[in-house]
Amino acid sequence: MASSPRHLDVCFSPGIIHLYDITDSIVVVIDVLRATSSMCVAMHYGVNSIVPVASVEESMAYRAKGYLIGAERNGEMLDGYDLGNSPFSYMTEMVRGKDIALSTTNGTQAIVAAKNAHTIVAGSFLNLDVLCDWLKSQDRSVLLLCSGWKNSFNLEDTLLAGAVIDKLQADYSMSMMRDAAIAARHLYTVAKEDVYGFLGESSHRMRLERLQIEKDIEYCLTPNQAPAIPILHDGALRLLTP
Amino acid sequence: MASSPRHLDVCFSPGIIHLYDITDSIVVVIDVLRATSSMCVAMHYGVNSIVPVASVEESMAYRAKGYLIGAERNGEMLDGYDLGNSPFSYMTEMVRGKDIALSTTNGTQAIVAAKNAHTIVAGSFLNLDVLCDWLKSQDRSVLLLCSGWKNSFNLEDTLLAGAVIDKLQADYSMSMMRDAAIAARHLYTVAKEDVYGFLGESSHRMRLERLQIEKDIEYCLTPNQAPAIPILHDGALRLLTP
Repeated sequence: MASSPRHLDVCFSPGIIHLYDITDSIVVVIDVLRATSSMCVAMHYGVNSIVPVASVEESMAYRAKGYLIGAERNGEMLDGYDLGNSPFSYMTEMVRGKDIALSTTNGTQAIVAAKNAHTIVAGSFLNLDVLCDWLKSQDRSVLLLCSGWKNSFNLEDTLLAGAVIDKLQADYSMSMMRDAAIAARHLYTVAKEDVYGFLGESSHRMRLERLQIEKDIEYCLTPNQAPAIPILHDGALRLLTP
Repeated sequence: MASSPRHLDVCFSPGIIHLYDITDSIVVVIDVLRATSSMCVAMHYGVNSIVPVASVEESMAYRAKGYLIGAERNGEMLDGYDLGNSPFSYMTEMVRGKDIALSTTNGTQAIVAAKNAHTIVAGSFLNLDVLCDWLKSQDRSVLLLCSGWKNSFNLEDTLLAGAVIDKLQADYSMSMMRDAAIAARHLYTVAKEDVYGFLGESSHRMRLERLQIEKDIEYCLTPNQAPAIPILHDGALRLLTP
């Protein structure tokens, strides 16, 4: 039983993370469609490590060191890369045991924005229960950081934050910056019976629809398909082994 | 009948307003508790103009020019000022026909953040219907700017944004940054039967509870009590006369 009080908060955009004191907190980075979902899948299927990188140049430097390189910009895979951002591309033998340098539009940037946190883990619907159980076992405040879309608010990340709050709220108190958490919980309550349908008119669904990746989206919104927690150590995400 | 398409969007924090192109838009600045509510009351009760100012020094310069000065920081009136941030303080004969320089924690700052907009007006529950009718009559996109609390998300401003969307959505399209608008509309749908009760656990309610201003809060959450639209011209808010 962890000692109290520990706080549970939500930040809707990496652009305002400076408003939160995260130095003693666990930050859960959330990019449901699709970066943190793919990270959970990668860990669950045996990838050794994922280094979040910010630029193409940095990716190429890692390739020279023997890494596979993955990248996505505006929802699409980039030419010349080994991997994109689809969770299914991380379920192959090709990636097992490998180290990957990954750059994405939003998820990677959010990890960078959270760099002052005590601990950074990746959250998605795919690791929802195992993530919540682990958070509860830790004696620390938690900030759920929605990656959003280029720093603007997005719905799917907010719904996952709401799902986490739904599971954890009895064990945490909320800070004076609680309104985002209250909003996320209410939105999840409205959406939870049909998250896929609820997101039907959302911006990201519409962006990704163009790319014909409905299968990715349905997978990423289905809880507990990849019960692994990616945790950042020395600049690389690895499988958390509690 | 205005020509299409015009967009209706919501920005949850002045800290990310740079993500929106507002140069051709009407920005509705929202600070329900209590800056924009008090501005609506002031206009409805005959104040001539309100100049939003950022600092104490600036206020004093306006006082020297014969203005009344109003200020609030962290919910409380400042010593040496004529007026605070309570809507009731703007219902007196003392303010009729007067010019006021007003500095508040969040509302004034949001107006400054929106300075590149085509048009800036103040919105609150108090002018909800008259505001929506006027917006509909304009052939322009609208951004609803929630002042929040020191750049973090807040619920009461979001609920007003949701109420405006509820009334206007049939006449506008949403941009690709639509998720905030979808969220605000859902939250308003959940809250609308009892906005006061819904906000019971919100951060700002708890902050203001300390100050024993429940009467202010109930008033500010009651629609259409002060059907006047403050509009910014040459740095001062004045009554919009359609």
